[in-house]
Amino acid sequence: MDRLDTPDFDHYPITVLPVELTVSESELLITWEDGHRSCFPLIMLRDFSPDLVTFSLQTREQNISILDIPDSLSVTEAEICDDGFISLKWLPECLVSRYHPGWLRVHCPTDPKPQFTLPDIKLWPWGLTHIPVSVPADQIQQPAGMTTWLNGIHRDGAARITGLPQEPAALADVVTAIGPVRESNFGSFFEVISRPDADSNAYTAQALAPHTDLATREYQPGLQFLFCLANQTTGGDNILVDGYAVADMLKQTSPDDYELLSSTLIPFMSRGLDTEYRYHAPLLEHDRHGKICTIRFTYWLRSPMSGNQQKIAAFYRAYRRFHEIVNDPANQIRFRLQPGDLIGFDNRRVLHGRTSFDPESGDRWLRGCYLDREELESRLRILSRNLRAQQAG
Amino acid sequence: MDRLDTPDFDHYPITVLPVELTVSESELLITWEDGHRSCFPLIMLRDFSPDLVTFSLQTREQNISILDIPDSLSVTEAEICDDGFISLKWLPECLVSRYHPGWLRVHCPTDPKPQFTLPDIKLWPWGLTHIPVSVPADQIQQPAGMTTWLNGIHRDGAARITGLPQEPAALADVVTAIGPVRESNFGSFFEVISRPDADSNAYTAQALAPHTDLATREYQPGLQFLFCLANQTTGGDNILVDGYAVADMLKQTSPDDYELLSSTLIPFMSRGLDTEYRYHAPLLEHDRHGKICTIRFTYWLRSPMSGNQQKIAAFYRAYRRFHEIVNDPANQIRFRLQPGDLIGFDNRRVLHGRTSFDPESGDRWLRGCYLDREELESRLRILSRNLRAQQAG
Repeated sequence: MDRLDTPDFDHYPITVLPVELTVSESELLITWEDGHRSCFPLIMLRDFSPDLVTFSLQTREQNISILDIPDSLSVTEAEICDDGFISLKWLPECLVSRYHPGWLRVHCPTDPKPQFTLPDIKLWPWGLTHIPVSVPADQIQQPAGMTTWLNGIHRDGAARITGLPQEPAALADVVTAIGPVRESNFGSFFEVISRPDADSNAYTAQALAPHTDLATREYQPGLQFLFCLANQTTGGDNILVDGYAVADMLKQTSPDDYELLSSTLIPFMSRGLDTEYRYHAPLLEHDRHGKICTIRFTYWLRSPMSGNQQKIAAFYRAYRRFHEIVNDPANQIRFRLQPGDLIGFDNRRVLHGRTSFDPESGDRWLRGCYLDREELESRLRILSRNLRAQQAG
Repeated sequence: MDRLDTPDFDHYPITVLPVELTVSESELLITWEDGHRSCFPLIMLRDFSPDLVTFSLQTREQNISILDIPDSLSVTEAEICDDGFISLKWLPECLVSRYHPGWLRVHCPTDPKPQFTLPDIKLWPWGLTHIPVSVPADQIQQPAGMTTWLNGIHRDGAARITGLPQEPAALADVVTAIGPVRESNFGSFFEVISRPDADSNAYTAQALAPHTDLATREYQPGLQFLFCLANQTTGGDNILVDGYAVADMLKQTSPDDYELLSSTLIPFMSRGLDTEYRYHAPLLEHDRHGKICTIRFTYWLRSPMSGNQQKIAAFYRAYRRFHEIVNDPANQIRFRLQPGDLIGFDNRRVLHGRTSFDPESGDRWLRGCYLDREELESRLRILSRNLRAQQAG
């Protein structure tokens, strides 16, 4: 008989068993053998009942909505089964639900123990000279190699693969193993070469000071990948800067400037013959918890500001200061990509640039694309889940 | 000689001329013939100088950064030219900049007059029974028809095209004329049909109460398109609900619930064999100005909440209330798509659903895709810009 053990596809080790249950009008209190107590609101337990009416066996999506659950529900029977599962009988539905003890312990409302968490972000230390993580191409098809690379991109903001086949398709092979590419008005994949009909500064031979891409979008792409297919020119070295570290330096040395760049809305605007993206956002964006989450710094894609003269002048002073820290070589990693090298970096954190190059001196061809952070996070969760499945046998 | 009149590709009518200039240490004061005064910070004027050192003729992107502009700049000569342009000579650069009077007037910092603004959003009135805007397919290739349809999607949250060719490719033809499609783990285009290997509730024959798609993503897709290729089944009618109107009703009738749904982070989580997206966000999201900007309501893609028991129970009460308003038929538009019909709707505002259908009773095939709001906005700006170009002759 098909049966759901849990309302998702994950694998939950049973490390501790429940020993006592107490049901009240609105809660279930579980006492575990290690003495820990978990108190679950009944409505939430019913919401996540792993039965085949509530959840689909095939999609593990919920088949019902909260309106299908009686408002006046109660538990009439509660018992710990021999296998450690907890069985509850719901009234007035007469539904019996069996809860997996590993799943329950992980989801204890006051002491949740997520099975997977992303590594902590690590700011670049002063004087860093190279991208910390570099993975040889022959390891990237292995779960461990992919995990190392993606963890590096998440933690350090950038990580490299070396020695990929020097073929244009090699980029798609690697990145679509993470998740879908985010297409933009420059296509799904863009070719960074110097060309006479350039519709972006990127497609010239000029130097590009460190910047982020597509700051004109409400949701600036979270990840960028640059794959080197040729690099024989004089000049054309790559530059990376940890924008979070720059923001941190600004916060330490000029807190007023940090505040201005966190609150002043910059009118970002792209210039195109067939597109015109506009978005007003601060250079430094913070998440709901006040942590920095995005640097918007496609500095050449702005339109004039409006508002109070003094505020505009003050913004320009803070903006200049930010540029100065970004362009201080002490804060930059400079390196030369070799054909077959691929760098992945967090486009909402790490600024990228290049020195100018002489297009007559040889070929230079980088192929690039964007993905979003959530694709990397999803892939790391799946890699971790698969490892748990292996361990579970 | 190639020359830039303005730092972008837009067309600025000259409706009023400058009559007097006053330069101070940090500002340029322009007096216009209608008596209006515009005071520009010098640093910002220099930043947007439409010369070929500062801006590229071809890309209209800025070629310089703020660090290329001397901190101690000043204007040594300022004059109004015969053609109404304002000429400034900058020291120490010895650069001469010529500013277009139409561009200057539009960008007056204290009285900006944007050439294009999106139409105001209009909540659905009580008792609305149909999508307000419907455009026949033969008009959609015309700028006016496309503008009408996109304005409808922006203003009303949904608009329809009727009578498109009943071929799968017809969807891509229409939407890629707006901008690039946003791919997801379900592909660039997804086929909403009942299939035995469903990896989402969408791909079954079951009823779907009104919801938004992909609430598990940090940036929930802004637009969704559903194109009908076949609809012969018993059942399978479409339902749309204005989520902003629902939020507004909740705010009027249960302000505490509104506040809870605006502040409680819901742990959205998708369930997949090869993907696991998670994002914590409130059901009702507001922008920097406190205006509602997103409804997150893929209600079957959540994981259990953690935290205080009373708060969780209070959330569930507010959450139930929201479901009740959404599922009140008085707040729903119900209709049947005909083959060749395409609906575009704002997936961060309008909830969509369907009644269940009998897959044995005939064929039902909707083809769908996502774009982001910014693509619609960019396209409307270009349509408006092209109209200005025509008017300018």
